[in-house]
Amino acid sequence: MSRRRQIYEGKAKILYEGPEPGTIIQYFKDDATAFNAEKKGTINGKGVINNRISEYVFTRLSHIGIPTHFIRRLNMREQLVRQVEIVPIEVIVRNVAAGSICKRLGLAEGDPLPHTLIEYCYKDDALGDPLVAEEHIACFNWASQEEMQDIASMAIRVNDFLSGMFAAIDIRLVDFKLEFGRLYDGDFSRVILADEISPDGCRLWDMNTNEKMDKDRFRQDLGGIEDAYQEVARRLGILNNDDNSPGEVLDMSAHRGKMRGKPAKK
Amino acid sequence: MSRRRQIYEGKAKILYEGPEPGTIIQYFKDDATAFNAEKKGTINGKGVINNRISEYVFTRLSHIGIPTHFIRRLNMREQLVRQVEIVPIEVIVRNVAAGSICKRLGLAEGDPLPHTLIEYCYKDDALGDPLVAEEHIACFNWASQEEMQDIASMAIRVNDFLSGMFAAIDIRLVDFKLEFGRLYDGDFSRVILADEISPDGCRLWDMNTNEKMDKDRFRQDLGGIEDAYQEVARRLGILNNDDNSPGEVLDMSAHRGKMRGKPAKK
Repeated sequence: MSRRRQIYEGKAKILYEGPEPGTIIQYFKDDATAFNAEKKGTINGKGVINNRISEYVFTRLSHIGIPTHFIRRLNMREQLVRQVEIVPIEVIVRNVAAGSICKRLGLAEGDPLPHTLIEYCYKDDALGDPLVAEEHIACFNWASQEEMQDIASMAIRVNDFLSGMFAAIDIRLVDFKLEFGRLYDGDFSRVILADEISPDGCRLWDMNTNEKMDKDRFRQDLGGIEDAYQEVARRLGILNNDDNSPGEVLDMSAHRGKMRGKPAKK
Repeated sequence: MSRRRQIYEGKAKILYEGPEPGTIIQYFKDDATAFNAEKKGTINGKGVINNRISEYVFTRLSHIGIPTHFIRRLNMREQLVRQVEIVPIEVIVRNVAAGSICKRLGLAEGDPLPHTLIEYCYKDDALGDPLVAEEHIACFNWASQEEMQDIASMAIRVNDFLSGMFAAIDIRLVDFKLEFGRLYDGDFSRVILADEISPDGCRLWDMNTNEKMDKDRFRQDLGGIEDAYQEVARRLGILNNDDNSPGEVLDMSAHRGKMRGKPAKK
């Protein structure tokens, strides 16, 4: 592998310069953080699963006309994406009360919201990604009004699509986080879906047992975190039912130089 | 004075049933609280001053067509207002960064904002009046979209008027809080300005010295709080220049049974 210039290392991903101008390689780490990085750990195989789930979701979202940064998956932990200028707003779409909104507004986890709620947080780790309103976004020019309209309408479409997709595999989409980026064409730009969609940034509850199948298992020390991520991938048909050994499926190194499903060369 | 039914006691005011249906008597206390009532104290004569300043401001706002709950001042500490159903949203209008926004968004006190910013907080003491966006207000039906449009446009007009009013007396209007209420007419209602406008809910800085002339003197233990409130009233022409003795002007009991400016009966 040739040396590539690292552009950015985040909490769960590393970005490298891509092979062509305007492209980026997104590398998925196993590192996990929570509570604004106060809690740190590793979820074995998470990067491999999230790379696959995000590929799966972004590909299907593009089929319904949501523009995304995703180009193609390169290998177990990497995908090629378009280079965008990230809009410094985390978009949180909530269908059921869970996480930060519970304490903030006095709701119980699991309370259904009267209707889907979109929240915006200003992406700034030092400030703890504070909740903001469209008034703040306009005042500090973090995004234009047109961009926010596009973002809100995409967020609602993504929510509808993902709610259906997860419902089909008996998973309730409680809430999730989206990030968007500006794709420039000369002086013009449009916002497209960026970052990732995976159990790191979604709350996913089993519809029958209400069991958590997402990063809350890490946040709340519930155990079984690797199994939960794998189960989401398995239900999506990304992992086959017999692919249930983390060592077999999730350890990138175990796959170097061999192709699954084919007999190894002798 | 006949016995009146107390409807509500808040941190700085008591509401009594008014003499006619649809009216309320708003009594201004000297009690002061800050940081969600974690800090408590008394500001001598504050209630008298705030009653007068709020009368002054609400009267003038009604002259530019802002509908308010104010009917008339009754005495040193009381005013008659229309009974409304309070919209559970505190509307904060900010021209300059100060207070909670500084830590939340990493701004320095005194930073000019790129433009006027309206923030909404959900009125709930137990939750610490959390910041919310219009999406939350719509989701939980705290106010209708039409009401929020009326509220936002009134807030902007009030800001323009008050900025001018205070600029004329060398005071910078840094930020302030408004509350609105629903005035019912049968099944219909419209929102009107309610509560009070006083140095309790405004940040007012002397334009020349940047000295604080508001409740931040209490929050930050700066001293001279009574003087600051009186100075605002004096510049507004509510207190005469020779009315600078709190005992003379601000002690309600000192005025019982005597009329200032007229010789006492012998």
